[in-house]
Amino acid sequence: MGSVCARGLGPLPEVRAGGDLAELIASTALGGKLCNGQLLAIAHKAVSKSEGAVVRLADITPSKRAEELAASQERDPRAVQVVLDESTEILRAERGVLICRTRHGFVCANAGVDSSNSVDSGTLVLLPRDPDLSARRIRARLRELTGARPAVVITDSFGRAWRHGQSDVAIGLAGMHPLEDWRGRTDARGMELRATWIAVADAAAAIADLARAKDSREPVVLLDGLERYISEEDGPGAVALLRAPAEDLFL
Amino acid sequence: MGSVCARGLGPLPEVRAGGDLAELIASTALGGKLCNGQLLAIAHKAVSKSEGAVVRLADITPSKRAEELAASQERDPRAVQVVLDESTEILRAERGVLICRTRHGFVCANAGVDSSNSVDSGTLVLLPRDPDLSARRIRARLRELTGARPAVVITDSFGRAWRHGQSDVAIGLAGMHPLEDWRGRTDARGMELRATWIAVADAAAAIADLARAKDSREPVVLLDGLERYISEEDGPGAVALLRAPAEDLFL
Repeated sequence: MGSVCARGLGPLPEVRAGGDLAELIASTALGGKLCNGQLLAIAHKAVSKSEGAVVRLADITPSKRAEELAASQERDPRAVQVVLDESTEILRAERGVLICRTRHGFVCANAGVDSSNSVDSGTLVLLPRDPDLSARRIRARLRELTGARPAVVITDSFGRAWRHGQSDVAIGLAGMHPLEDWRGRTDARGMELRATWIAVADAAAAIADLARAKDSREPVVLLDGLERYISEEDGPGAVALLRAPAEDLFL
Repeated sequence: MGSVCARGLGPLPEVRAGGDLAELIASTALGGKLCNGQLLAIAHKAVSKSEGAVVRLADITPSKRAEELAASQERDPRAVQVVLDESTEILRAERGVLICRTRHGFVCANAGVDSSNSVDSGTLVLLPRDPDLSARRIRARLRELTGARPAVVITDSFGRAWRHGQSDVAIGLAGMHPLEDWRGRTDARGMELRATWIAVADAAAAIADLARAKDSREPVVLLDGLERYISEEDGPGAVALLRAPAEDLFL
């Protein structure tokens, strides 16, 4: 019998470019209560802002392709240009949404570029440039500040094929096994557990999202009960969750 | 600041066809501790077995199509026939896996047909015929037995496009809003929250899976902290999570 608990750590002050997000988390939200076996889930926008992964629309000159896509989708051509800059491939463009493969390899709407919760209305927030590196840096800094070495997952809300709604998934990860592999192992009756390969980091990201309200400035959620997935080393990161297109039976 | 907790309720005796699963849960696992605002997540196999949604391979005569598919995928033609019987469409057949659209409309590997944890090795467990109805029945029976009216979600592990590993999702639901819609609402700074439509029932299913070990006979997990999604009425069910193929921008 196990239990898993996710707890929102309350509001965080606005994070500025170059700001020390780990210090902000440790001083504002934690009160020194961090432990080694815990997982900190951080909504990516706080990470992006601290890293300056923000663009001002006024600074963008749209290409001809961006102008054309924007016209067909009734969107700001400059915003479309930002999405194109973040993408290696546009899989669909319909009903105002661009489904993109990002530079990182994520498939999501608008390449993860977002205006909501922005510092001001003329700016767009990008995904962190290397979210696994971001997670490792935050983890290392938290250790410096608190002595504890929790795992860190950076999350974003992605839509899914076949199903309505979005789920938060892991886009950056340090100190946690992203997948738990039961394939080839046997169950309680000695039968092989066949297709059981669990995306534990994505499940943790999904529940962290339910522990905070979307209208609050509450980017950080602390999870207990996942100790068996937490590791001393930083591990392979969320990039290990990406399925190569050539291997993808669901497409 | 919110918190969400998932707790495995321990082993359950083997469920037989026609068995009263709700009674088994109430008597074995709960000890009268059920409350109205709670969510019970039940792995679908226990539900399928109690409903007799089980087939014996010895009773199956494979069709020519099943024989051909089985030959190309190196599988038992009778098992392939069972998968075909459960599907309205085979989207892919590769590396021993059939990606199917089930009679319910779910897209998943092998139409959710599973041999692991079976009562004996010559049988296959199907998905419940109408998982939303199953959830409503279990909810009603739990109310009779305990006086409490928790929500009930029936779960299965599905693979995903673009990402490795599986996540548990809601395949049946009663008494919980499957989706939380923030689209058009504004955030703490008055900015519109654009693409924010959260699949809360799937997030709950995903975390429930982490609160039990895959090799244990522990199908039931109790979730607290989701009171704001729990409803007196049974609601639209998990079928509301299905995206119509014609609307699916991710395909």
